[in-house]
Amino acid sequence: MNAEIVAVGSELLTPFRQDTNSLYLTEKLNELGVDVSFKTIAGDARPHLTLVAQTALSRADLVIFMGGLGPTEDDLTREAVAEALGLELWRDPQILESLGKRFAARNMKMTPNNAKQADILTGATVLANSSGTAPGQWISGKYEGREKIIVLLPGPPHELKRLFEEQCMERLRSKLPPAFIATRVLKVAMMPESQCDARVAPIYRRFTDVTTTILAGAGEIQLHLKARAPELQTAQGRVDRLAGELEDELGDAVFSSQGESLEQIVGYFLQMRNATLAVAESCTGGLLGERITSVSGSSRYFLGGAIVYSNQLKADFANVPEELLKKYGAVSRLVAVALAEGIRERCHATLALGITGVAGPSGGTPEKPVGLVFHALAREAGTEVVERNFPGDRKRIRWFATQQALDMVRRRLM
Amino acid sequence: MNAEIVAVGSELLTPFRQDTNSLYLTEKLNELGVDVSFKTIAGDARPHLTLVAQTALSRADLVIFMGGLGPTEDDLTREAVAEALGLELWRDPQILESLGKRFAARNMKMTPNNAKQADILTGATVLANSSGTAPGQWISGKYEGREKIIVLLPGPPHELKRLFEEQCMERLRSKLPPAFIATRVLKVAMMPESQCDARVAPIYRRFTDVTTTILAGAGEIQLHLKARAPELQTAQGRVDRLAGELEDELGDAVFSSQGESLEQIVGYFLQMRNATLAVAESCTGGLLGERITSVSGSSRYFLGGAIVYSNQLKADFANVPEELLKKYGAVSRLVAVALAEGIRERCHATLALGITGVAGPSGGTPEKPVGLVFHALAREAGTEVVERNFPGDRKRIRWFATQQALDMVRRRLM
Repeated sequence: MNAEIVAVGSELLTPFRQDTNSLYLTEKLNELGVDVSFKTIAGDARPHLTLVAQTALSRADLVIFMGGLGPTEDDLTREAVAEALGLELWRDPQILESLGKRFAARNMKMTPNNAKQADILTGATVLANSSGTAPGQWISGKYEGREKIIVLLPGPPHELKRLFEEQCMERLRSKLPPAFIATRVLKVAMMPESQCDARVAPIYRRFTDVTTTILAGAGEIQLHLKARAPELQTAQGRVDRLAGELEDELGDAVFSSQGESLEQIVGYFLQMRNATLAVAESCTGGLLGERITSVSGSSRYFLGGAIVYSNQLKADFANVPEELLKKYGAVSRLVAVALAEGIRERCHATLALGITGVAGPSGGTPEKPVGLVFHALAREAGTEVVERNFPGDRKRIRWFATQQALDMVRRRLM
Repeated sequence: MNAEIVAVGSELLTPFRQDTNSLYLTEKLNELGVDVSFKTIAGDARPHLTLVAQTALSRADLVIFMGGLGPTEDDLTREAVAEALGLELWRDPQILESLGKRFAARNMKMTPNNAKQADILTGATVLANSSGTAPGQWISGKYEGREKIIVLLPGPPHELKRLFEEQCMERLRSKLPPAFIATRVLKVAMMPESQCDARVAPIYRRFTDVTTTILAGAGEIQLHLKARAPELQTAQGRVDRLAGELEDELGDAVFSSQGESLEQIVGYFLQMRNATLAVAESCTGGLLGERITSVSGSSRYFLGGAIVYSNQLKADFANVPEELLKKYGAVSRLVAVALAEGIRERCHATLALGITGVAGPSGGTPEKPVGLVFHALAREAGTEVVERNFPGDRKRIRWFATQQALDMVRRRLM
């Protein structure tokens, strides 16, 4: 079975907004063993919508429409799909009543335009929307002689997700040959994409029954593995075998094999060792702390630290000797060491990170170009430093620097 | 003239990757006065691609294909478009030669598969690609009796953007009736969307010659205004008039009228007043510092500060009296004040911000629920505090808190 996802809404045809629901739906459909063959984005113009519905019905077995089910005159998905299928719409008194109740419960008067949300395609099953007003619809039948399933879902992401999970997953599963999908995600820190690919490609190419997708970001490569089989155990065995071989090849560069983020993994290790962490950030300006504290519960191991943007604060908050700053400059190996050691002492932390560098776009010199960053990790037994030259713009360089620093903690605690 | 954008690539039909080129292209096409009516995403399967090309040609005047022009066997856009148009492909010896030179210059041997990048649709104009190997193509002619323009662009964003700007903008402009587009972006801080909409809708609805798009994010609403006219002055006058009326209505809630970010605006004001800023962050964990320092040149006004995640550090780095923490708890009005005043003193800053709150998802109590945040701004003349209850998850609450804090600085310096 192949699917087409149609996102409806004129705002999705502007330079400002993007359909993201389809990423979620694709993941769910893939779990069921359904591939997405086409995605279409259409505005609110009814003739365009009808055309899009006809096209989708002619080329996909399962067509999912998202959006355009609301109460305004621009919400025309129901009408367009009815026209494409040659079906009538009828107003369901039961839905009308529950819409009225919903408004009454909020002490609001239901304006007449809301009634169109009760319009149902003849023969369709109503999919109750437990988090919004517009219900979804499900209809199956023949179109141009072929069996089709058509699903109408509301556009707001939280409504769509809940409705799809509650009402569509099992319905779809029952229409499909039994298929189990097993997935694994390996994440790799601070390895160039070409180097990673050269090492893993010979391995995953041998596993023709596993789909491998490689996604590369700043300082992180993700290997998404997916296998489909009539039995879960078979599918799981396939991804596990490939994951095992990849982990053997990449060794400790793999920081996560179940999808966890680097900041989560660092948090696990710190808790496991009963250790605490502090930071002194110059060029990253708070990003490192932000990433660490994005994990709920991080107060169990993260104490805090200082954003030492000015040299005065490097001295005041992290005890960096002023002669060091004068002699070597703020962006230097020794200042990174002093930052980490100083903030560790000031915060009474088990481990501490210091970062100093040139994030750009301005401020670079021939000796200290944009992208040069020093990362230091201090602990009781001593301090290690890593010097890197990161490519890219300010945002990317700062991200790289925090990735490198977090990875140093991980490797130390591993 | 209406346009369809077709993004080609099987990775765009996975849960992991999204087409973003179309946002750029939509912006450029809108500048030329061309609306995008459809966007389609297709994989690398040739029959699917041909179908998509036929559909696009039947419903749009301008069809732009992105991607699928590379050297691999999965790169089939040329072949599919040729089939849809009923045209032959021919191998252009000049392109072939320049491909060979490109490889030779890098001391690389050109593998035979690269040659297909020299395949050109009969009658097409070659669009030289100054940043990659695969050239673009431009063809205009009749399809089903109607005049069409078809453009093939490479997929990598930097190649696509450069090629479109260098080779397509003027070509397209010369085919279109003269139209000038003027745009303005107003940004509004910390106003509920419904309240903003109720105030601005009666105004922008009167301006039928200006398109208004409202985008709401956490603590920020953007009003995008766009007008099209045969003369630039006329278009500019229209958006300026509407912008003026909207600014009159919304007053100082509008923080930016040329698209600047809140952190940029705060930076302008600080520099203008020759003032410096420091921060003491508890629940935001570094996000506030990160946002301020995301602006290049922020070292001219931002000194730094402390991430005071533990209570000990609130005392050590921001001089918060321990009895205050004991008596009122870390999340309290008085601790926020003490954080701002303490960090201001410690950093010798003109202004200082203190943030403390419950970011969740755990840690909330009936008295201090998840989302409760206190924001304090200290200056010579005194300290102001704002207490807010933000909705949403950890990420959203933390973002809201920094938005509120930055907006307090802006309002104070305005």
